[in-house]
Amino acid sequence: MSQLEEVLYTPGAFGLLRGHRLGRIAVLLVAVVALAGGVAYITPASGQPDEKPAPIFVDKIPDGYRDWKLISVAHEEGDLNSLGAILGNDVAIKAYREGKLPYPDGTIIAALHWRHAPSEENNKIFGRRQSFVAGSPTNVQFMVKDSKKYASTGGWGFGHFNGRDGKKSGDAALLKTCFPCHQKAKDRDLVFTRYAP
Amino acid sequence: MSQLEEVLYTPGAFGLLRGHRLGRIAVLLVAVVALAGGVAYITPASGQPDEKPAPIFVDKIPDGYRDWKLISVAHEEGDLNSLGAILGNDVAIKAYREGKLPYPDGTIIAALHWRHAPSEENNKIFGRRQSFVAGSPTNVQFMVKDSKKYASTGGWGFGHFNGRDGKKSGDAALLKTCFPCHQKAKDRDLVFTRYAP
Repeated sequence: MSQLEEVLYTPGAFGLLRGHRLGRIAVLLVAVVALAGGVAYITPASGQPDEKPAPIFVDKIPDGYRDWKLISVAHEEGDLNSLGAILGNDVAIKAYREGKLPYPDGTIIAALHWRHAPSEENNKIFGRRQSFVAGSPTNVQFMVKDSKKYASTGGWGFGHFNGRDGKKSGDAALLKTCFPCHQKAKDRDLVFTRYAP
Repeated sequence: MSQLEEVLYTPGAFGLLRGHRLGRIAVLLVAVVALAGGVAYITPASGQPDEKPAPIFVDKIPDGYRDWKLISVAHEEGDLNSLGAILGNDVAIKAYREGKLPYPDGTIIAALHWRHAPSEENNKIFGRRQSFVAGSPTNVQFMVKDSKKYASTGGWGFGHFNGRDGKKSGDAALLKTCFPCHQKAKDRDLVFTRYAP
């Protein structure tokens, strides 16, 4: 991963939508740099071709994730404008509650996102505009721990699925932005969300 | 319930903190009205004393609620400044998913609230202030359906517990504000929260 890519592929936690846009710009800029500056970026100093395996992504929605236990909730302002619930399978919840790091193989974390929608019906009862609820579902994202399968991305597989219909976003440029950003939480095994009591 | 009380006891969904303050004012004003205007407010037209039983509240935190499934998430601005997760026991989740109304006896809905806290660590990665997470826990509230036990409050028992330490708020004036407000969602069996897919 070049430094240039690392800077450009920085969407932030749950910032994949923004990352998507930046991802395209990054691809373009990397191409320009490669053309203008030779191939220094794509061959390592040893002169051997870069043999780092291409990252593998989560390509199927894990069964039953909507029934998993709650890790925490989140709200993103700005372009994302989302309310989120972060759920974990039993392996994830156990590791979280025991403060166990790194997360063991089998851990799956799901981040469900909805539009951060004002609730007119609640506001009417409140008598003021202060209530926001889960609006239309925007996406669900997964982190799956499998230290062998996902060895090239810190042991984590990343997945992003639009809406709730199970359709994969199918965009490698988008999914490529996950790992460089989550790497910034290295001290927590790449997981941003903390457990909410 | 007099009209005066109904107006004064209107805290809104999860507006119990505000309701608390209003509750005290209401009690005071009702007393003043009773003294100044006679007993018209406390005896019905029939001349019989008002025999409506005093409401019964949920006085114990239901076991295992933190492991329940997610119904939805919520964000309240203003004085409440809270992020919330609404969880349901199996009876609740089944009724929600089947769209079954009224909720059957045995339904329990839990609303966990935390401060709506900016996440400095996420914002640093985003490069802008946009990320909010669950801060310190403020309270957990319950609605328990038991059409006999809680007959005087629409079949629902209401409970409010500060923090996460299991200590009851213990304040009847606060808990008295729940039912009049939830009554405004009569078409949904007094439940404000809708299921989030």
